[in-house]
Amino acid sequence: MLAEIITIGDEILIGQIIDTNSAFIAKELNKIGVKVFQITSVQDEASHILDALAQANERADLVLLTGGLGPTKDDITKAMFLEYFEDALIENPIVLAHIHSIFAKHLTVPPLPANISQAMVPSKATILMNTHGTAPGMWMEKNDTVFVSMPGVPFEMKTLMKDEVIPRVKSKFKRPHIYHKTLLTFGQGESQIQERIIDWEEALPETIKLAYLPSFGSVRLRLSSTGTNKNAVENGVNNQMSILSEILQDISIGYENETSLVGRIAELLNAKKKTLSVVESCTGGAIAKSITELAGASSYFKGGLVPYSTAHKTKILSVDASLIKKHTVVSIEVASAMAVNSRTLFDSDYAIATTGVAGPTKGDTDKAVGTVCIAIAGPDRVLVEEFSFGKHRERVIAKAHNKALEMLLKELSKN
Amino acid sequence: MLAEIITIGDEILIGQIIDTNSAFIAKELNKIGVKVFQITSVQDEASHILDALAQANERADLVLLTGGLGPTKDDITKAMFLEYFEDALIENPIVLAHIHSIFAKHLTVPPLPANISQAMVPSKATILMNTHGTAPGMWMEKNDTVFVSMPGVPFEMKTLMKDEVIPRVKSKFKRPHIYHKTLLTFGQGESQIQERIIDWEEALPETIKLAYLPSFGSVRLRLSSTGTNKNAVENGVNNQMSILSEILQDISIGYENETSLVGRIAELLNAKKKTLSVVESCTGGAIAKSITELAGASSYFKGGLVPYSTAHKTKILSVDASLIKKHTVVSIEVASAMAVNSRTLFDSDYAIATTGVAGPTKGDTDKAVGTVCIAIAGPDRVLVEEFSFGKHRERVIAKAHNKALEMLLKELSKN
Repeated sequence: MLAEIITIGDEILIGQIIDTNSAFIAKELNKIGVKVFQITSVQDEASHILDALAQANERADLVLLTGGLGPTKDDITKAMFLEYFEDALIENPIVLAHIHSIFAKHLTVPPLPANISQAMVPSKATILMNTHGTAPGMWMEKNDTVFVSMPGVPFEMKTLMKDEVIPRVKSKFKRPHIYHKTLLTFGQGESQIQERIIDWEEALPETIKLAYLPSFGSVRLRLSSTGTNKNAVENGVNNQMSILSEILQDISIGYENETSLVGRIAELLNAKKKTLSVVESCTGGAIAKSITELAGASSYFKGGLVPYSTAHKTKILSVDASLIKKHTVVSIEVASAMAVNSRTLFDSDYAIATTGVAGPTKGDTDKAVGTVCIAIAGPDRVLVEEFSFGKHRERVIAKAHNKALEMLLKELSKN
Repeated sequence: MLAEIITIGDEILIGQIIDTNSAFIAKELNKIGVKVFQITSVQDEASHILDALAQANERADLVLLTGGLGPTKDDITKAMFLEYFEDALIENPIVLAHIHSIFAKHLTVPPLPANISQAMVPSKATILMNTHGTAPGMWMEKNDTVFVSMPGVPFEMKTLMKDEVIPRVKSKFKRPHIYHKTLLTFGQGESQIQERIIDWEEALPETIKLAYLPSFGSVRLRLSSTGTNKNAVENGVNNQMSILSEILQDISIGYENETSLVGRIAELLNAKKKTLSVVESCTGGAIAKSITELAGASSYFKGGLVPYSTAHKTKILSVDASLIKKHTVVSIEVASAMAVNSRTLFDSDYAIATTGVAGPTKGDTDKAVGTVCIAIAGPDRVLVEEFSFGKHRERVIAKAHNKALEMLLKELSKN
């Protein structure tokens, strides 16, 4: 069966917001065997929305819409549903009670008429309760196609998808099994990788599809397959993936979702009962942020320091001022001292240190913009390297962040 | 004139990546008066791509495609262009020389046949040089519609858009002027805001469109207008925006793009010649990361500390252990001491401190998951408040991050 996702809102078409909802919805649908044929973003404009509904009806068995359900005048999805399904509004008492209870619990003001009007819903719709907001989801059918309208607020949409939409789709449609597995690699480009795996790739069974996904000096390799027999589909992909990861053993990190750089680091630190701290000059907190986004980080993460001015590298981190004077603040010597002293300051087994010139200007150093020194200090030794990451601040920070985690992972994997 | 954006790649339709390219392209087009009618994401599949090209041809004057130009077998956009435009490949010597020079300059290996094949291009295409990669952009025309194919790697696409596509679109098409201006507000919901501005909204001229964009406890209000006279269009929006921002004076931060929370804070700190430091327990580096993403942050940002274990709040930050024992680590007393001591540690005029329970488990405290205490210490006084941000780790961190910056902004705006 095929699904289509329609996102409604001028804010997407003028580039004011990035559509993150579609990726979430697509992923959830894939998990239950529903293939997404197309994603379409349309304007808050009546004829455009109606056209999109009619076209999706031709192509898809399931059409999921987000956006345009707010209480303000620019939101017109509900009116379009009324027109498309030739329906009229009725008041839903459960939604009405829910709106009153949300206001009573969380807000200091009473609901306004615009909030109350969220309880008016198309009479033919199955209502999907939105526990986190006042706009309910709506499930309607036409010509054997199911249309589901959800609010565009990501948190509300996600809960509706998981609690209401997915279970209903599962019971309504017969679905095959879709399976993806993605190998994470680093250090080689996609052409180089293709050259190494070409014989294996050409011998892949037709039921298994390979995709190359390059980004920031790493390539992800995805195998995908679909079929009615879950075990056969998964075994097919897993067997091919074992061969692939063996061919690329020297550049593989692991599998996406099962792990990530930060996730794999967490596993290794937990397994070894070791701890980590970070001192970030040019990455400015980005590494600490990634590490602490993972639940349970407090079991291995001792803390981080962002000594953004040179003086604080000396004062808080006790880096020898004469060392900085001799080698400049962006040097492998200073990076190394920062990492070593971070272990002491935070009493951690391992430490990452970054110091560099993110740009656009040079600051307290004679090094070129984009120069970054990264050090990893462990119980037995210190690794330190100087890199050149280009001239764009955002990219320099992102690349330094990735490279530092990669270096730590390699070091943890060795011991 | 109307444009359509088509993104090609299964990775978008299975939710493996979020389509950030479309938002960038849409924004750049809007700046030069090109309206994006629709954004469509399609699979790496021949008939689907050809259908999308044909449909876009009917709707749009300009069709911008990204993705499917890589050197590997899963990339088929170039082949689809050949089919759609009934064209054949020829070798482009400039692209060939460019590929060789990229490999000679940046890579330790010689180009592979797959890389060299990027120099084979459709004979009718105008080639757009991709300075950052080996796949060139292609500009082709059919039935008065222009089709432009660009690589999906964001950095390569962005440079191609700015250097090649935008100048050519400008000289090829007559375009109106499109203008958006967005007011950033905080602290009230969209229904409340609508209630306050309804009389003004209903009196808006038909040429000006209002949109409400809610997210994480803040609402953005966008006014948009299009017309042939640049001054008339901009004055019309600006005049209405002045009225709107006056009505909502108590909850306005400023205008999007002209400013952001972090940008406004930077302006005020620079203007007052004051400095900032941050101590982040539950936000784990997120605030430091946002502040240091802005170029020039080193002029007012002294540094940050992520004292992730309770012990380091005492050891590095000198927070009194008995204070933590008495009030627990998540308390307004401890948050306040953290902020005050951060000023001393980093020798800064202002300091932000966060301490809370991001979840999913409680850690060293008896406070409920989602409880966060935020303190702002300045030269004259300390502001501190306790919040409850729900049960979801990601949201707790995001809301604490936003609220802390909002509190600092208010404090800086007052003095």
